[in-house]
Amino acid sequence: MRYPNGKKYQVKNQVKETSSTNRRTLLSAANRGMSLEEDINSSNEYYKERGMALITKRPTPINIVKVDYSRGARITDAYFEKQSTTDYNGVYRSRYLDFEAKNTKSNSAFPLSNISRHQVEHLRNVINQGGIAFFIICFQLKNEIYLLDASFVIEYFEKGGRKSIPYQVFKEKGVLIRQNFNPRLHYIEAVDELYFR
Amino acid sequence: MRYPNGKKYQVKNQVKETSSTNRRTLLSAANRGMSLEEDINSSNEYYKERGMALITKRPTPINIVKVDYSRGARITDAYFEKQSTTDYNGVYRSRYLDFEAKNTKSNSAFPLSNISRHQVEHLRNVINQGGIAFFIICFQLKNEIYLLDASFVIEYFEKGGRKSIPYQVFKEKGVLIRQNFNPRLHYIEAVDELYFR
Repeated sequence: MRYPNGKKYQVKNQVKETSSTNRRTLLSAANRGMSLEEDINSSNEYYKERGMALITKRPTPINIVKVDYSRGARITDAYFEKQSTTDYNGVYRSRYLDFEAKNTKSNSAFPLSNISRHQVEHLRNVINQGGIAFFIICFQLKNEIYLLDASFVIEYFEKGGRKSIPYQVFKEKGVLIRQNFNPRLHYIEAVDELYFR
Repeated sequence: MRYPNGKKYQVKNQVKETSSTNRRTLLSAANRGMSLEEDINSSNEYYKERGMALITKRPTPINIVKVDYSRGARITDAYFEKQSTTDYNGVYRSRYLDFEAKNTKSNSAFPLSNISRHQVEHLRNVINQGGIAFFIICFQLKNEIYLLDASFVIEYFEKGGRKSIPYQVFKEKGVLIRQNFNPRLHYIEAVDELYFR
């Protein structure tokens, strides 16, 4: 295991090195979902600029072991901590939003192995406080991205057995997020449909 | 400058090494304010455990330059990034809360030199989205901690001149936060008084 969620950490400059226009033309349906985080970030930027919503990404929590002050506070030893909350939160129409975004290569179900008990607890607390809690799940091979209320994830998480949410649940209970040029993922539309109607 | 906000970063284990009981008995009014962050964190823990509110601290944003995967994803080179939002946000009574906490050794005014334009912009956006935005300011030498709506900070920030908020503004427009054993800073009471009456 390289990183709490099993993926290799991408150094920021590497991410930035391809321009969004170049990147977009290179994307096929299959690798489209790999840029889920970037797409959400750029959509958040779009929403912020237009005053539509204010959603921010929580920085990756890092445990710092050593700092070299002779080099201007350079961190020389540190490690990744497990995210105990979620990646995103913010405010929309006066309400508190909180969500986690995940990819899956499965066509039949979203496996819950990537979701920690801490995160499930966190989202349960959000709901108890009257906040809006959901997941954005990208079925990469289908190139379909769904918004699903966190209550379903909590429900399936608490079940015994194999712990995954069938694709059919997303079709029936979730909202398919419209993909576009800008915003790339118009997930606030899905929030409107699910929580403000 | 060692760190974006001018203070030395405290390695986590050092912070944890004194127990809260020992720490408390050692505190005089003068250094009491230095533990502002810890007091807010422990109050948030208290609120979460009792289902009263869910407020989390955003991790310090860090720009990672080098990761050594041969040592289990150990970060070997990184540096601190400026916080472009605020330290805390969360949900209370279905509303979105967002705030920044700061200490000052001044008795007469809170200097705005520690507040960045990014943070002011962020809090303005929070207000525009219908969120609740405020500051928790600790006047260390007085051992008084106030909650002040962010609109005052925005107003004084936009003024020309020396950029500080007189102590009198806190007395008249802010709410003095009750300090206690548990929660150490009962700032949700102040939120009730200011935003839910």
